[in-house]
Amino acid sequence: MSVHRDFNKANEAYVANFGDKGRLALAPTKKLAIVTCMDARINPYAHLGINEGEAHIIRNAGGVAKDALRSIIISQRLLGTREIAVFHHTGCGMLTFTSSHLQTLVKDSDPGNPALEAVDKIDFLEFPDLEQSIKDDVAFLKENPLVLPETVVTGWVYEVETGKVCPVQNLWGRLCVTHLRCSDSPNCLICIWKTVRSILLSFIDETCHSHIGSLRHM
Amino acid sequence: MSVHRDFNKANEAYVANFGDKGRLALAPTKKLAIVTCMDARINPYAHLGINEGEAHIIRNAGGVAKDALRSIIISQRLLGTREIAVFHHTGCGMLTFTSSHLQTLVKDSDPGNPALEAVDKIDFLEFPDLEQSIKDDVAFLKENPLVLPETVVTGWVYEVETGKVCPVQNLWGRLCVTHLRCSDSPNCLICIWKTVRSILLSFIDETCHSHIGSLRHM
Repeated sequence: MSVHRDFNKANEAYVANFGDKGRLALAPTKKLAIVTCMDARINPYAHLGINEGEAHIIRNAGGVAKDALRSIIISQRLLGTREIAVFHHTGCGMLTFTSSHLQTLVKDSDPGNPALEAVDKIDFLEFPDLEQSIKDDVAFLKENPLVLPETVVTGWVYEVETGKVCPVQNLWGRLCVTHLRCSDSPNCLICIWKTVRSILLSFIDETCHSHIGSLRHM
Repeated sequence: MSVHRDFNKANEAYVANFGDKGRLALAPTKKLAIVTCMDARINPYAHLGINEGEAHIIRNAGGVAKDALRSIIISQRLLGTREIAVFHHTGCGMLTFTSSHLQTLVKDSDPGNPALEAVDKIDFLEFPDLEQSIKDDVAFLKENPLVLPETVVTGWVYEVETGKVCPVQNLWGRLCVTHLRCSDSPNCLICIWKTVRSILLSFIDETCHSHIGSLRHM
């Protein structure tokens, strides 16, 4: 049976306890836009303790920032949000395929149907690495001229195994994300070493770039 | 202060009561994808009584189906959903502007900045009529060759003033949607007349089209 037949019945309890939510303003009170995956296991209201009226919630396959740009511009320019939190998550389907694979799958479902060739024009925006995908999306938003320059942009992992959220922009966040891939104890020394190593390498990389930059300007 | 600083604290209660949600499967158990607006007042878990693991939730400015197509293809082809419910809502920001207006607003925010001209390439997918926008999105999905032909597609209004959901695909739905614009009593005769009239006109229109079609085949 189609699930939509239950919607009106399921909606009755919400309507009965709606309270004064009908007076909520159109603009989000926390001036926050959340970008997260459509994944069925993720309920951002519950895992972030958000209430109706507080934040825009933009969701797509992967929680991909590029796919959310239209919505973000409307959110910022017309409805006053000034902060964006991008969440990707462990166990995401976007880590498991490529656009080329999916395009073939769609075309092979009805061979010879020319209408299905339209799928070749769609970039499915999959990503092979969770942590990198969040960093890329944060960078995309910070560098995009259509996103207001004063915007606070942060990147997060949601862990479907535990319900935990974890930032990826600092030492603790990077340690946390490295751990999400690790089935060992929370004090796993390999994870700590990997994180320290990656931070050191980033630091060396940035120092080299600055040095090259300063040489160019001499 | 940035709201994201509260995320970890707000997340603690959810993690403490996470239960066995870590075992939920990647594929939505109800084989359902919901497309709805990013609007801060809308919480589809609450207003439809949906639990984690049951449905994909795709959200963008307006709940626009066209903008959700990439996600829908992934949802259907890789994760088994076979039903789509499109929700638009009363008091939606998408009813209040045009792409041209927003493009001008963005460019005027920093006159002479050529990077902002990129906004002219974005179609903001606004709509001037709530009921028509839902019908258009349902038709878009039903007719799109990349959406599986066996998909059950339904269109709904969410009413921000009361928390009610209302289908737009049948007599009751059309009456309900007409009423959403009406501040009179639930038995408003004008609404009932408008609905009956629009159904009669649709019927005449369809009959004429069939008649013309049969004449062409004679």
